[in-house]
Amino acid sequence: MRFLHTADWHIGKKLHGYDLLEEQRDAYEQIKAIAQAEQVDAVVIAGDLYDRALPSESAVTTLDDMLVDLNRKQKFPLLAISGNHDSAVRLGYGQEWFASTDFYLRTSFGDSLKPIVMGNTQFFLLPYFEPIAARQYFQDDSIRTVNEAMVRLVAAMQALFDPAKKHVLIAHFFAAGSQHSDSETQVQVGGLNAVPVDLLAPFDYVALGHLHRKEALQNEPKIKYSGSPLKFSTSEAEDTKGVWIVDTDTDPVTVTFKPLKPLHDLVVLTDSFDNLMDFDHDYPVTPDDFVAIDLTDTTPISNVMQRLKTRFPKVVELQRVNQLEVSQATLDVKQVQQDPLTLMTEFFEQATQHKLTAQQVKWAQSTLQAALKEDDA
Amino acid sequence: MRFLHTADWHIGKKLHGYDLLEEQRDAYEQIKAIAQAEQVDAVVIAGDLYDRALPSESAVTTLDDMLVDLNRKQKFPLLAISGNHDSAVRLGYGQEWFASTDFYLRTSFGDSLKPIVMGNTQFFLLPYFEPIAARQYFQDDSIRTVNEAMVRLVAAMQALFDPAKKHVLIAHFFAAGSQHSDSETQVQVGGLNAVPVDLLAPFDYVALGHLHRKEALQNEPKIKYSGSPLKFSTSEAEDTKGVWIVDTDTDPVTVTFKPLKPLHDLVVLTDSFDNLMDFDHDYPVTPDDFVAIDLTDTTPISNVMQRLKTRFPKVVELQRVNQLEVSQATLDVKQVQQDPLTLMTEFFEQATQHKLTAQQVKWAQSTLQAALKEDDA
Repeated sequence: MRFLHTADWHIGKKLHGYDLLEEQRDAYEQIKAIAQAEQVDAVVIAGDLYDRALPSESAVTTLDDMLVDLNRKQKFPLLAISGNHDSAVRLGYGQEWFASTDFYLRTSFGDSLKPIVMGNTQFFLLPYFEPIAARQYFQDDSIRTVNEAMVRLVAAMQALFDPAKKHVLIAHFFAAGSQHSDSETQVQVGGLNAVPVDLLAPFDYVALGHLHRKEALQNEPKIKYSGSPLKFSTSEAEDTKGVWIVDTDTDPVTVTFKPLKPLHDLVVLTDSFDNLMDFDHDYPVTPDDFVAIDLTDTTPISNVMQRLKTRFPKVVELQRVNQLEVSQATLDVKQVQQDPLTLMTEFFEQATQHKLTAQQVKWAQSTLQAALKEDDA
Repeated sequence: MRFLHTADWHIGKKLHGYDLLEEQRDAYEQIKAIAQAEQVDAVVIAGDLYDRALPSESAVTTLDDMLVDLNRKQKFPLLAISGNHDSAVRLGYGQEWFASTDFYLRTSFGDSLKPIVMGNTQFFLLPYFEPIAARQYFQDDSIRTVNEAMVRLVAAMQALFDPAKKHVLIAHFFAAGSQHSDSETQVQVGGLNAVPVDLLAPFDYVALGHLHRKEALQNEPKIKYSGSPLKFSTSEAEDTKGVWIVDTDTDPVTVTFKPLKPLHDLVVLTDSFDNLMDFDHDYPVTPDDFVAIDLTDTTPISNVMQRLKTRFPKVVELQRVNQLEVSQATLDVKQVQQDPLTLMTEFFEQATQHKLTAQQVKWAQSTLQAALKEDDA
């Protein structure tokens, strides 16, 4: 059988205050189009369908529309689990009915030992879990980590393996390369709650969610993060987002990446303020793209965010990559001897060409007082 | 056909801080037993399934368990609408799947014009709505009230009436007797957002939710509030809670009330403190019952709530039905001339036999200052 593997939709997530529902709906339409073009037999969603345990009503409506479309209208069987961002209870509401149209949503640890068979494949659906769920399920207080839980669980799953079938695990956790180490993943995960990939060797394919970059496990041919359909942070600006198409009819399974095209991209621009504000300089962004700016200037610039937004309406981050040069005037001995409030006030006026309001002076005073107290402590 | 009419479950509601989930599960079991004994063809739930738009996870689990049991396990078709306490979006999540096993959950105004036919009856499912929903649906800005909306909607429903069928409306609003006035209901509802019962005459039966007492419309033989399954306030302490069994095979329909027995009752006790604390006095309550106490004493009693709870662990309300007698000492001219803080302190000590703590003195001071300022204003 042939399935599409996606994860980490995070419906309802905002990017520095910007709503992403339009972008999320567009990514969904692309995923659906890929599922249709590839004629998959099922769609796997490996957790974090919502961004929050308590999603907004618009997030609920958006996800519901997608699932209704994919399962009820397009008739794709769905295999989905809850991630750490989902409330297992809230997401799971209604799952008893969903199964009637081959929408298998699993939100409890124990359900991972009730495999779903589709075509030539047994699917084990393991939602995100805390070690306590494994302790309770196995009635074994010695299980303290996700790693220890997985040792027990994989053995129990293997006992259920139908040797005539392929075996696919759908899960939402940190997988760490033990022999095939992946430095980025190691740094990100570490610790006892990372699952060594060796432990996952019995499976023909492991469809993971949790990390947002498909590269997190790039040296593993059959253990994959799909990554998120959208770029959710500037550290993902260079990523190519997409989904995996997995074919279990071959041995080993065949895994193909299908990219998604961002409706509105997330782009990091590194340049000087003057260049950025110069309309003769072209940048590979549209007015609807999300822009993170790494400013190379070394001098203060007044109203910098407000002015940058006149050219790039959706600035989501602004940072300076070089240290500010402190002007000679600021270093003037007379000024250094002034009290901190005067120094702060003068710096503010110099940098912004505005005076502090009475309220701002109050805030400055109380903050300075608090800071001076900490110095004394 | 024969159906059970209930409403206003308010799963997750608390009674003065006391969780009611155990009582709600017990009431559910009784409702299920009635549905089984009466061999109904469907169960109608006329809104306010949850107590809040954002129910707790335990409330979600509890309601989900009930609906799964009633519809998936006991195989009762369900007809349900959202009430004003429900979030239409959150409650409605999954409704596309629910219908596959004859669980018809309707949360949008327009869906009320897609009747569900079961046996000899057309059911019109109208969730709680605001007039703006009717304005948008009918594209008519002149609709300003629920009453005006219902005039339009009932006409539209009548146009859909199959003359060979009975017609039942399931709704969640205030119905006011226009000719058959019901004083309690008039007082409670009034205004332009009450729906005159005459407007509902075309229906063979109207299954209402919203008001918690079945007596709200007791003079209407075929327009009924089922009332809530539990007593949710002391004003309902004397109520008999229950459900209606409605048979549409007769003409007019046959309506029978089936009472529910409270697992833990809500009882109002009116008596003196000494009697209430005297174990030779019997009261018709168990330690698990919720007790509202109307105290007849006219003198101050120290630690009154704490002491009453030694006999009645679940006191949910305490009020005095007679005015306190003010002792001669308190009225002493010398004392009246004292400053308010001294007066308050002495009264507190006299009434509770405790001294004010330093923090309580602070609170008293700031409250008195605020009160004196208001006097000056």
